[in-house]
Amino acid sequence: MSLDIKKERGYLVVLSGPSGVGKGTIGAKMLEAHSDMCFSVSATTREIREGEKEGVNYFYKTKEEFEQMIANGEFLEYMQVFGKNYYGTPRGFVEEKLAGGMSVLLDIDVQGAMVVKKNYPDALLIFIAPPSLEELYRRLVGRGTETLEAVERRFAQAKTEFTYVNNYDFVVVNDDLAVAVQDVEAILRARELSSESYKEQVFGLLNKEAQEN
Amino acid sequence: MSLDIKKERGYLVVLSGPSGVGKGTIGAKMLEAHSDMCFSVSATTREIREGEKEGVNYFYKTKEEFEQMIANGEFLEYMQVFGKNYYGTPRGFVEEKLAGGMSVLLDIDVQGAMVVKKNYPDALLIFIAPPSLEELYRRLVGRGTETLEAVERRFAQAKTEFTYVNNYDFVVVNDDLAVAVQDVEAILRARELSSESYKEQVFGLLNKEAQEN
Repeated sequence: MSLDIKKERGYLVVLSGPSGVGKGTIGAKMLEAHSDMCFSVSATTREIREGEKEGVNYFYKTKEEFEQMIANGEFLEYMQVFGKNYYGTPRGFVEEKLAGGMSVLLDIDVQGAMVVKKNYPDALLIFIAPPSLEELYRRLVGRGTETLEAVERRFAQAKTEFTYVNNYDFVVVNDDLAVAVQDVEAILRARELSSESYKEQVFGLLNKEAQEN
Repeated sequence: MSLDIKKERGYLVVLSGPSGVGKGTIGAKMLEAHSDMCFSVSATTREIREGEKEGVNYFYKTKEEFEQMIANGEFLEYMQVFGKNYYGTPRGFVEEKLAGGMSVLLDIDVQGAMVVKKNYPDALLIFIAPPSLEELYRRLVGRGTETLEAVERRFAQAKTEFTYVNNYDFVVVNDDLAVAVQDVEAILRARELSSESYKEQVFGLLNKEAQEN
């Protein structure tokens, strides 16, 4: 007989870090390996890019729609980047997934992460760091989706983000992708093994067996 | 360039759980894979068994020697099992290893674990649980090193130990040995990635690079 443990509630996992550090790739690898995990789909007012899909990459909203959602309190966190485009995490989507036992990955910036931690103290805040600034710059340029000006701006922003990392629970360096994925998996597994729900189930089952004998 | 992170201090890892659950085997597998890990060698007054070695399995002491060590405060924790043999963890050994960056595995019982947690709040307390009591009984008998009376006594003790598990940080079920080892490794890795020392080193290095550019 083997113990049959059920995850009663998913974990909220925040992956932050500079653009180009590989948060999306790490998240995608996690999803491939774990059927009980999903990405939060953000809402945004930025234009849809080639290859992106509504409801998959983002929920694309007009400025008016987005501001109405803010007024309705429909966001877990939201922000306006460079005074222009809004990005936000729809609260309903996240709550529903967690309650269904799915862990939800949030790809949000340091300010958003601080708001999430305030609302969900149990959230796992993971900062993905580049192995070096030089490598980060190379990745940003290599991506080829942005103007050089945008790259420079993102790079400057990355440097200021590093000052927030003490507020994160964990830091994972994305040098070797496989190691970084393994690290994020270790963080989630360790949380699972320390959860009250897990402990209760294990010993509930063992104690039940003890009483029956 | 890749970040060169040094572990400044090892972790104290307590593996508790009933006799026969496989703590020793899990620990041995960990040691095979990690050169920065060692088992704490306990002192005991019990007789040396065939195949055991002084300073490897235990430091074998007479009752008088052991009681003198207690009086000198040389133990991190100690206990007397069934009112007979003493077992104890020499404090000096553990301190020295931790300071040298080695993680130390302690194979001690629930009472000892509680004493350790009080003295070292940072210690990682892991309870190794059997997949079932039936399986535990099978393993205890199969070990063949003890009388049936001793097996029954250990089995009864195991049941009472389960009431302590809420005081443990983590529970790992040893059903599949490879999974159990991976679980303990995940716990250690997650602790590493959340340590202040690790975070400071990562961002110290990145900030240094930022200032040089």
